[in-house]
Amino acid sequence: MNEITMKMQADELILMALKEDITSEDVSTNAVMPNARKGTVELIAKEDGVIAGLQVYARVFTLLDENTEIKFHCKDGNEVKKGQLLANVTGDIRVLLSGERVALNYLQRMSGIATYTREVSKLLEGSSVTLLDTRKTTPNCRVFEKYAVRVGGGSNHRYNLSDGVLLKDNHIGAAGSVAKAVAMAKEYAPFVRKIEVEVETLEQVREAVEAGADIIMLDNMSPEQMKEAVKLIGGRAETECSGNVTRENIERIREIGVDYVSSGALTHSAPILDISMKNLHAV
Amino acid sequence: MNEITMKMQADELILMALKEDITSEDVSTNAVMPNARKGTVELIAKEDGVIAGLQVYARVFTLLDENTEIKFHCKDGNEVKKGQLLANVTGDIRVLLSGERVALNYLQRMSGIATYTREVSKLLEGSSVTLLDTRKTTPNCRVFEKYAVRVGGGSNHRYNLSDGVLLKDNHIGAAGSVAKAVAMAKEYAPFVRKIEVEVETLEQVREAVEAGADIIMLDNMSPEQMKEAVKLIGGRAETECSGNVTRENIERIREIGVDYVSSGALTHSAPILDISMKNLHAV
Amino acid sequence: MNEITMKMQADELILMALKEDITSEDVSTNAVMPNARKGTVELIAKEDGVIAGLQVYARVFTLLDENTEIKFHCKDGNEVKKGQLLANVTGDIRVLLSGERVALNYLQRMSGIATYTREVSKLLEGSSVTLLDTRKTTPNCRVFEKYAVRVGGGSNHRYNLSDGVLLKDNHIGAAGSVAKAVAMAKEYAPFVRKIEVEVETLEQVREAVEAGADIIMLDNMSPEQMKEAVKLIGGRAETECSGNVTRENIERIREIGVDYVSSGALTHSAPILDISMKNLHAV
Amino acid sequence: MNEITMKMQADELILMALKEDITSEDVSTNAVMPNARKGTVELIAKEDGVIAGLQVYARVFTLLDENTEIKFHCKDGNEVKKGQLLANVTGDIRVLLSGERVALNYLQRMSGIATYTREVSKLLEGSSVTLLDTRKTTPNCRVFEKYAVRVGGGSNHRYNLSDGVLLKDNHIGAAGSVAKAVAMAKEYAPFVRKIEVEVETLEQVREAVEAGADIIMLDNMSPEQMKEAVKLIGGRAETECSGNVTRENIERIREIGVDYVSSGALTHSAPILDISMKNLHAV
Amino acid sequence: MNEITMKMQADELILMALKEDITSEDVSTNAVMPNARKGTVELIAKEDGVIAGLQVYARVFTLLDENTEIKFHCKDGNEVKKGQLLANVTGDIRVLLSGERVALNYLQRMSGIATYTREVSKLLEGSSVTLLDTRKTTPNCRVFEKYAVRVGGGSNHRYNLSDGVLLKDNHIGAAGSVAKAVAMAKEYAPFVRKIEVEVETLEQVREAVEAGADIIMLDNMSPEQMKEAVKLIGGRAETECSGNVTRENIERIREIGVDYVSSGALTHSAPILDISMKNLHAV
Amino acid sequence: MNEITMKMQADELILMALKEDITSEDVSTNAVMPNARKGTVELIAKEDGVIAGLQVYARVFTLLDENTEIKFHCKDGNEVKKGQLLANVTGDIRVLLSGERVALNYLQRMSGIATYTREVSKLLEGSSVTLLDTRKTTPNCRVFEKYAVRVGGGSNHRYNLSDGVLLKDNHIGAAGSVAKAVAMAKEYAPFVRKIEVEVETLEQVREAVEAGADIIMLDNMSPEQMKEAVKLIGGRAETECSGNVTRENIERIREIGVDYVSSGALTHSAPILDISMKNLHAV
Repeated sequence: MNEITMKMQADELILMALKEDITSEDVSTNAVMPNARKGTVELIAKEDGVIAGLQVYARVFTLLDENTEIKFHCKDGNEVKKGQLLANVTGDIRVLLSGERVALNYLQRMSGIATYTREVSKLLEGSSVTLLDTRKTTPNCRVFEKYAVRVGGGSNHRYNLSDGVLLKDNHIGAAGSVAKAVAMAKEYAPFVRKIEVEVETLEQVREAVEAGADIIMLDNMSPEQMKEAVKLIGGRAETECSGNVTRENIERIREIGVDYVSSGALTHSAPILDISMKNLHAV
Repeated sequence: MNEITMKMQADELILMALKEDITSEDVSTNAVMPNARKGTVELIAKEDGVIAGLQVYARVFTLLDENTEIKFHCKDGNEVKKGQLLANVTGDIRVLLSGERVALNYLQRMSGIATYTREVSKLLEGSSVTLLDTRKTTPNCRVFEKYAVRVGGGSNHRYNLSDGVLLKDNHIGAAGSVAKAVAMAKEYAPFVRKIEVEVETLEQVREAVEAGADIIMLDNMSPEQMKEAVKLIGGRAETECSGNVTRENIERIREIGVDYVSSGALTHSAPILDISMKNLHAV
Repeated sequence: MNEITMKMQADELILMALKEDITSEDVSTNAVMPNARKGTVELIAKEDGVIAGLQVYARVFTLLDENTEIKFHCKDGNEVKKGQLLANVTGDIRVLLSGERVALNYLQRMSGIATYTREVSKLLEGSSVTLLDTRKTTPNCRVFEKYAVRVGGGSNHRYNLSDGVLLKDNHIGAAGSVAKAVAMAKEYAPFVRKIEVEVETLEQVREAVEAGADIIMLDNMSPEQMKEAVKLIGGRAETECSGNVTRENIERIREIGVDYVSSGALTHSAPILDISMKNLHAV
Repeated sequence: MNEITMKMQADELILMALKEDITSEDVSTNAVMPNARKGTVELIAKEDGVIAGLQVYARVFTLLDENTEIKFHCKDGNEVKKGQLLANVTGDIRVLLSGERVALNYLQRMSGIATYTREVSKLLEGSSVTLLDTRKTTPNCRVFEKYAVRVGGGSNHRYNLSDGVLLKDNHIGAAGSVAKAVAMAKEYAPFVRKIEVEVETLEQVREAVEAGADIIMLDNMSPEQMKEAVKLIGGRAETECSGNVTRENIERIREIGVDYVSSGALTHSAPILDISMKNLHAV
Repeated sequence: MNEITMKMQADELILMALKEDITSEDVSTNAVMPNARKGTVELIAKEDGVIAGLQVYARVFTLLDENTEIKFHCKDGNEVKKGQLLANVTGDIRVLLSGERVALNYLQRMSGIATYTREVSKLLEGSSVTLLDTRKTTPNCRVFEKYAVRVGGGSNHRYNLSDGVLLKDNHIGAAGSVAKAVAMAKEYAPFVRKIEVEVETLEQVREAVEAGADIIMLDNMSPEQMKEAVKLIGGRAETECSGNVTRENIERIREIGVDYVSSGALTHSAPILDISMKNLHAV
Repeated sequence: MNEITMKMQADELILMALKEDITSEDVSTNAVMPNARKGTVELIAKEDGVIAGLQVYARVFTLLDENTEIKFHCKDGNEVKKGQLLANVTGDIRVLLSGERVALNYLQRMSGIATYTREVSKLLEGSSVTLLDTRKTTPNCRVFEKYAVRVGGGSNHRYNLSDGVLLKDNHIGAAGSVAKAVAMAKEYAPFVRKIEVEVETLEQVREAVEAGADIIMLDNMSPEQMKEAVKLIGGRAETECSGNVTRENIERIREIGVDYVSSGALTHSAPILDISMKNLHAV
């Protein structure tokens, strides 16, 4: 994860997560360890998967004590095996104990998303379809989860409501028609934004193309309808297919001819990757 | 969710989640809807499950506009069916559109946890074992996820490092022995805390009981070992069983005789419950 | 200003501005007015211009006391005349006095920007060139200043570094070439972003077009060079002209054929519009 | 700028300004520079003026990366010439690119204020009149702008509503009379505050002196009235002249005999000083 | 306490104090009261004293639930008797229980300070000496404690380091002499500040007067020395006496002739006033 | 004070306290010391007592300037004598001056609490009664005050409403009976919490024991009643005695047989310990 992104976005969230877990003090550790004692611990994969979030994992410890040293034996995006040693963390044992849970909570979830995304994106290999995420991320974790998608081999759709235009049926209804909605968005939105429109019928596809939409999202269409839509669009706009796309059903999208497919499951259904900290001992 | 908990803990997090999704403005909505227009939308379950987080869902909209009205047709803990109407939300259409994603992101995740917890806890019905969660929650979502576990029928383990004492192998190592660790914790920790110790052998079980531990966590023991441990303890302490407990393997715990079983999967492996907002129209 | 934008972005900044001006209490007012007393005051233009920021002005007072009533006699975007009554503000006199300076500081600056932008955009009327702002805004005032530009008749360029791609010479240098930089950006950036490249020579213009850049910024080129660049691009990309554009020199851009012209002066050089609060009296 | 002031006041504001410009990540830079690379860049004046805000400029970069090195070739208050090299900044190129705009936004505005203030204060040279600023500063920029005024050769009026007493017509009206207002302020306000009263007639001047006001502000009086007021006061209080004072009209104040003249224009009408970062290259 | 001061300063601190006491939820109350139930409770003095902080007390409850109603039977500054009914608080019983401790913690401390201050100030009645507080307040409670001093009949010294000038021996040493220190402060500090100098000898008193100091603080001088100092100053500056002034020793200051006496004990040694909430019952 | 507790809890509060004292700048110091100058100062006890809060004292200075060096000649818990040198602080004189008041405000209060607690706890020496604090702490100072109690030889009761269950009369009333309240709490509260019940009669004592309460608080009972209660409980629950316990009256508790006695006076009535910074000089 980029260092500037860490400073600007991640640090505040990580610190909040630490404070969520330590509202007054770590009672157990303080009871038995009144003073600093140097120790080291191993980070070990407990199942196969794609690792993501190592900088975030490390940052939990260095936010608690900047002298903590983390030596990595892999990097984000690597496929790791059950039992593999991923890192050694060395520092005040109290810091290792107090930070362990938050550090793992981040790393396990991010790695879970990267692992799931890698699996799904492999199912699209050889096709020209690009896999996208959505805004269906965990509240206050978007910066971590969108990054994990990229690490897993996916691409990011818009980050949030402020940096992308996606006109849905209600926006179109409010504007009066697809053409009017696209025109209003072109006039209002910063000109660096592409205008994406969600359509549900071939008639709307036609309107969207003629209105000059940059991207047309085919929502809940059958594969046959989508193929026809792609033909009708004829390269005049990019195409995105969306709606309940998962590991189990994505392959049907390969041959339809759409440019992008977006899947909320990447961030809302990926199980965690099991990783743990073991063999802590004083040094 | 209790109103005071909402004010003290949830409001700040929900507002942050909204700001994560709207860093400058909702460009799409602002482009086509320059002015307020009243509308209403339906909240509908898209699969069967246990609903949790309705107050959080509602709070997203009332934080955006306190005049938004949410009429619920169910309450937290209800088992809902695919297609069931859960609520009507009425207010400024711009608010309904801009808040939709964050509101659903919370509700789907909380309901997913409640649904999974309900399934797991049913597998323990008729036994005397109580199902517990862990600290393996999503960073900055603990207050929501621990609540969802209760809604689903589980109980909460300690909230965080500050409000419970759990002495693990490293704490015991630092103190010198189980007996010393328990003694130090009893002296240091606020006296309203029970002292829980994690043990891995029968020898440690014996030490823990004699040291006066309130709760003994049997970590990664075989069912046979656990039965023996329970016998050895003989009611002199409460017992907890822990370690990779999921929907698939929890039934083996029923007859062991432990008082509690804790499962990280409740919060880190529950898939979301699919819920959506449909049929928005002006009123 | 949109109510949701106010809640998500503006409220926090306005409250900070109030706290900047009242670090302990308003000593003067508290000394002479120990109790609430209802009063009313007029908001009056002291010179001709375009008004912008009325919602922000009002919000200063309602954040201090939600019962303050503001009745507007104009709306954002109106051209107002010296001496014109713009609004009546009615409420606790202490609130009117304590909020006056912050409210005016916002309104005067936003109206100053709208006034200046209106003047500049009129100089482009009848041409096909669209006037844009830049990121040269006052720190922690961007949401207000970009809005004021729109009120004045300008359009917004990207909001910040996160929601638009603009590859400058250093980015191109880092990537190796214009073609490589555009390719890397297309792969990395969320696909809803257009890719803009800054070029300084006709050779670079050619490379940018061939690389598939969406927007080409002609930086510090002479009018003749720009005309040639536009011809060379031939509609295959949008064009933006930038570099020290002000009220005094913008007319030379009218006939060059570029689609957009951006001017930092809109936000960094606009003088304030003089507006004041007068005739406060008890009611 | 004093290091303690930086820590207590400026750091939080600078960090907010950076987050305003980077809400998720710097997409352009991250796309083409996945890793750190060391580089250096020059800070160059693009017009003549007085420099102010160098510590703030530097702080933007060191907040992003504490290892960034800034070597200054001038200091706050220096008169710099067009084309003059002001500083070299060396560090991770990604930091130089991502921080550039915010750093310049602060430096240009602060230097613009210092430049304008220097010009105005020179017009008072040789007289006994001291030039003051006002509270007409940009919201959330007061600490920077009041400092820039001092760098330019002006003095600061009160910082905000909490640390100075200025009784205006409404305060006087609320108290009942000038004498009562001054008496109430003397009783209420911390005794280290001087009591300043705004007056509009000679009659009020007389009352204010007799009430023991420390400072008398002559508001919107003609030069003749002011001279008479100064004579009437006869050194029993300090005198301040206020009301639409700018570079164009300040000289008329020189001979009136007032001790202070305050000008809102110093902070609300000063155009920026053009400064840029050039010649970035890897090292 | 002034409503604007409450909004600008107190609300944030009160909310923090509530969050300090409720980091996840009020477990006891939530366990036995799952739903809202209306109740009322009495606020009763348990010893004689001066009440201060009623608005703060009320604000704790209305921040938890804006519908809570507080009916006061006394007001700040009143001398209350043991057993006296001070207020009735009516609202959701859960709010009454969860807010009780924080509300009383504020009210008891503020009333303790007001009570102590009243006692001390009575010892100065009939003299011309004004009683002042200091900056020896509890961290993050200054706005409450300085207000309580005023309620008790004392006056406020400077609020903090930013709004008053007090040159101590180290400042004088840094400047080179009393005269230089005063001159530097007059040039640097906003002109609405009086310049106070701390002196320890009669020689320094003389220098301070001649340097034009506005206030001279006589630090740790004997009554005889102070009398001589006052004589020497002869009305050319105000005089303050400071140093370990308490209820027990303040009377010796009455006849010395100084204008002010400051006492840290008002805020750092006042015991709380015992007040409690009783007779809660449902309504 | 534990370093992790400092990072997670104390740093934010200390920084707020510094900002409370420096809202714009330290005017006095900045006026006479425009540049850094290295100096050293002594921390000296001005009366006998127990020192507590040295890490907090030091942190005030290192938060202002991380290069400040603090050399301690004692540690928390030591009994210090009037005139004793406690520490030398060396660094930028401006930092020493600007941080002095906040640093002492913390240290004096914390040491005052430790001193008072030590005195009280000595009165219980030789008995089996443990001395506890309460939640009657200063708002936003709990983490410091509870720590000071431990330093003084006391133990901590629950930290706040979230981490301990204490069922008072109103909770019992809401539940219907002592038995029901205890049962509800056992079901609702995390199982690591002990359940404490407040009782006022022997009848309630009996109910509480039978309901399985872990701790029984004897509220406002006479020594005789308490003795009878202890006998009735017969070791089946722990016992706590509470209600207006101070230095003056605690000895009567020694022989009653209760396990714990809690005293709000430890934190709400302890006078400060006088400590000061002396002999600052340049080095």
